[in-house]
Amino acid sequence: MIKIGLLGLGTVGTGVYEILTNKYDIVNNSVKEELSIEKILVNNINKKRNINMDTSILTNNINDILDNNDIDIVVELIGGVDLAYKYIKRALSSGKHVVTANKAVVAKHMIELHTVAKNNNVGFLYEASVAGGIPIIKSLKELMKINKIHSISGIINGTSNYILSSMEQENVSFKEILKRAQDLGYAESDPTDDIDGYDMARKIAILSSLAYKVELKDSDIKTSGIRNIKINDINFFRKMKLSVKLFASSNIKNNAITAVVEPVLVPTNSVIAQVNSNLNIVDIECDILGKYQLIGQGAGKDPTANAVVSDILDIINKEYEDFEITLNEEVALTNDINEFKNYYIRCSFDDQSKIEKCKDFLSSMSQDIEVKENDLFCITNKINIDSKDDLLLGCTKFSKNIFYARMQ
Amino acid sequence: MIKIGLLGLGTVGTGVYEILTNKYDIVNNSVKEELSIEKILVNNINKKRNINMDTSILTNNINDILDNNDIDIVVELIGGVDLAYKYIKRALSSGKHVVTANKAVVAKHMIELHTVAKNNNVGFLYEASVAGGIPIIKSLKELMKINKIHSISGIINGTSNYILSSMEQENVSFKEILKRAQDLGYAESDPTDDIDGYDMARKIAILSSLAYKVELKDSDIKTSGIRNIKINDINFFRKMKLSVKLFASSNIKNNAITAVVEPVLVPTNSVIAQVNSNLNIVDIECDILGKYQLIGQGAGKDPTANAVVSDILDIINKEYEDFEITLNEEVALTNDINEFKNYYIRCSFDDQSKIEKCKDFLSSMSQDIEVKENDLFCITNKINIDSKDDLLLGCTKFSKNIFYARMQ
Repeated sequence: MIKIGLLGLGTVGTGVYEILTNKYDIVNNSVKEELSIEKILVNNINKKRNINMDTSILTNNINDILDNNDIDIVVELIGGVDLAYKYIKRALSSGKHVVTANKAVVAKHMIELHTVAKNNNVGFLYEASVAGGIPIIKSLKELMKINKIHSISGIINGTSNYILSSMEQENVSFKEILKRAQDLGYAESDPTDDIDGYDMARKIAILSSLAYKVELKDSDIKTSGIRNIKINDINFFRKMKLSVKLFASSNIKNNAITAVVEPVLVPTNSVIAQVNSNLNIVDIECDILGKYQLIGQGAGKDPTANAVVSDILDIINKEYEDFEITLNEEVALTNDINEFKNYYIRCSFDDQSKIEKCKDFLSSMSQDIEVKENDLFCITNKINIDSKDDLLLGCTKFSKNIFYARMQ
Repeated sequence: MIKIGLLGLGTVGTGVYEILTNKYDIVNNSVKEELSIEKILVNNINKKRNINMDTSILTNNINDILDNNDIDIVVELIGGVDLAYKYIKRALSSGKHVVTANKAVVAKHMIELHTVAKNNNVGFLYEASVAGGIPIIKSLKELMKINKIHSISGIINGTSNYILSSMEQENVSFKEILKRAQDLGYAESDPTDDIDGYDMARKIAILSSLAYKVELKDSDIKTSGIRNIKINDINFFRKMKLSVKLFASSNIKNNAITAVVEPVLVPTNSVIAQVNSNLNIVDIECDILGKYQLIGQGAGKDPTANAVVSDILDIINKEYEDFEITLNEEVALTNDINEFKNYYIRCSFDDQSKIEKCKDFLSSMSQDIEVKENDLFCITNKINIDSKDDLLLGCTKFSKNIFYARMQ
């Protein structure tokens, strides 16, 4: 009998509890040893909950789980960083396997936690931390048994994709859609992580670290978001038969990694343009298999809980040991300055007098500039990442509201 | 040391040999026991080959492999049905694991071969038999550890998809594109299996049998193809902002399976419409994870060889035992007559006098009929699969060239 200690009984925790309870037969048919939930850590034992359960397994004392020798697997679903990290490390150190959905902890501490897990001969799995409904981490590990991964990219944040595709389809403002997303529970009350790209940066850091065998920190990844997008941008894109997506990309060439999170313009008649609402897509290029794309729910109770349970089953079936991170010391994040792209830049102005100055500033590096009322729309020449940064910085002297996107 | 006997050294066999040789280190790092190719069955030992190899491992005597007690895994890549089936069964019966890419054998004999494998305590894996570059069989097995599969559908034949997307993009005739596909090696000299849907029927039979725990025969699946499609059809679809795809679909409701291979019309602004050229897509709906789509190469040397090697690694790592087919006797293929769809029907005429008669015949069940020169274009009312068959049969009295497609 494999015994599980669950930390947290929020949305995902409830989903995990429900799968393990309602699907007892099907799940237990998939494992070599029977499993049961032994303890669940909650803040308030007496809180009324929407599920029928034996409340005697609830505890508000973490030691009931971490010091419990009967518990084999700790499932961390409390969120946050510092406390979750502490609990995960303590669990691994005391010889318990850990499954987590916590992308913040994984992005920050994955190499260290992998090492602790390895030293204690236990598993550390985190499928649910990236694109919940897409088993991308397991897929990557499978591919890497044969393939060298050349690039990973995708739409790996449902909130920003919901906002952008709703703006395109309904022609309403960013502000209005964000408010609706918050009302629907798709966006947090502080939406910074989702709309400014930080959430995607954590996820692409995790995937890139695995794929390229490097310790890539999300804070080192150049990250831009969609906070400043206006309906005028969307209308401009529509005329050019382009769709805008907040997009994470990383690739490796001769041990040099380029990784960036930024808005990207793709042809409307492309698979990526058609991945709408809160769906996610991950696009992998590798040497033998070639191109491989996975599309699914990025988040949500059931898909995320599915990923957590899938990790639990892999641990019980001992299908986790095949992978360990041996860092390749020759690999580094450098952001290739020999890669040249066109960029779209839109600057808006309160003060009409600055428009001409901004236009002059941009003209030397641009192929096309159009002014319409208070907006300047510019398509740059093919420039590298540094020139793009310089251009955007220069524009801030003239305009307070700037949106840019990379053209594919 | 795990020893492999390879049957066949054609395109895929060469790909497998190359991966196992050129990627010796990476592949052997992924397995718990070292592996090597012990023998390869070929027709002609002395034939000049494009790969550098130790020719002493070649043999033209099947017994050198099947009666060889040193060989643990037999990899069947000779193609065909009867001989391959015989070899696979003999290998399994003598306690050897079998990996095959042979969809014809798997579609025809999978349940029997699974039983022989189980009785001999060995693995029988066939990832490469369906959509080579998409690990769909392993993905299905993973999903089924937690999920109930509601439906599987997709573009799972690269040749027909290449033909249809080329017709759409280049506005050239079926005949011309088929000729080019044959010259490029995308289509066989006898293209029947690809363009008439039989290849897809085999693949959806395999996937459905796994997913619904039933012995579904490809010969029982209603199958139509694209042999009769004309550029006039494509132009009609373009006006309606639709794309045509040869599509396999199966679903299960209350133990009743509907499975069909036929041309389907999808909105141009959909993911499926954008899966072009020889790419494949598989679309799965299940109860917990929801919608999940995988896109990749459907065939080709490297993607198919990747799938074969992946199966070999799973056998060595003993990651194949988790799955067995216990048939659910309550499940049957019935084709739901309570599902109603619109269909597109186009009939062409040599004899103008038959056009009006055909129009009269179709009018009672159609919402829209248009005649243009010698073509009649019809969009039916929502009808079930039986009414559709009746309509098409009726049309054959008037027209010798008919193309139809289901509207989604």
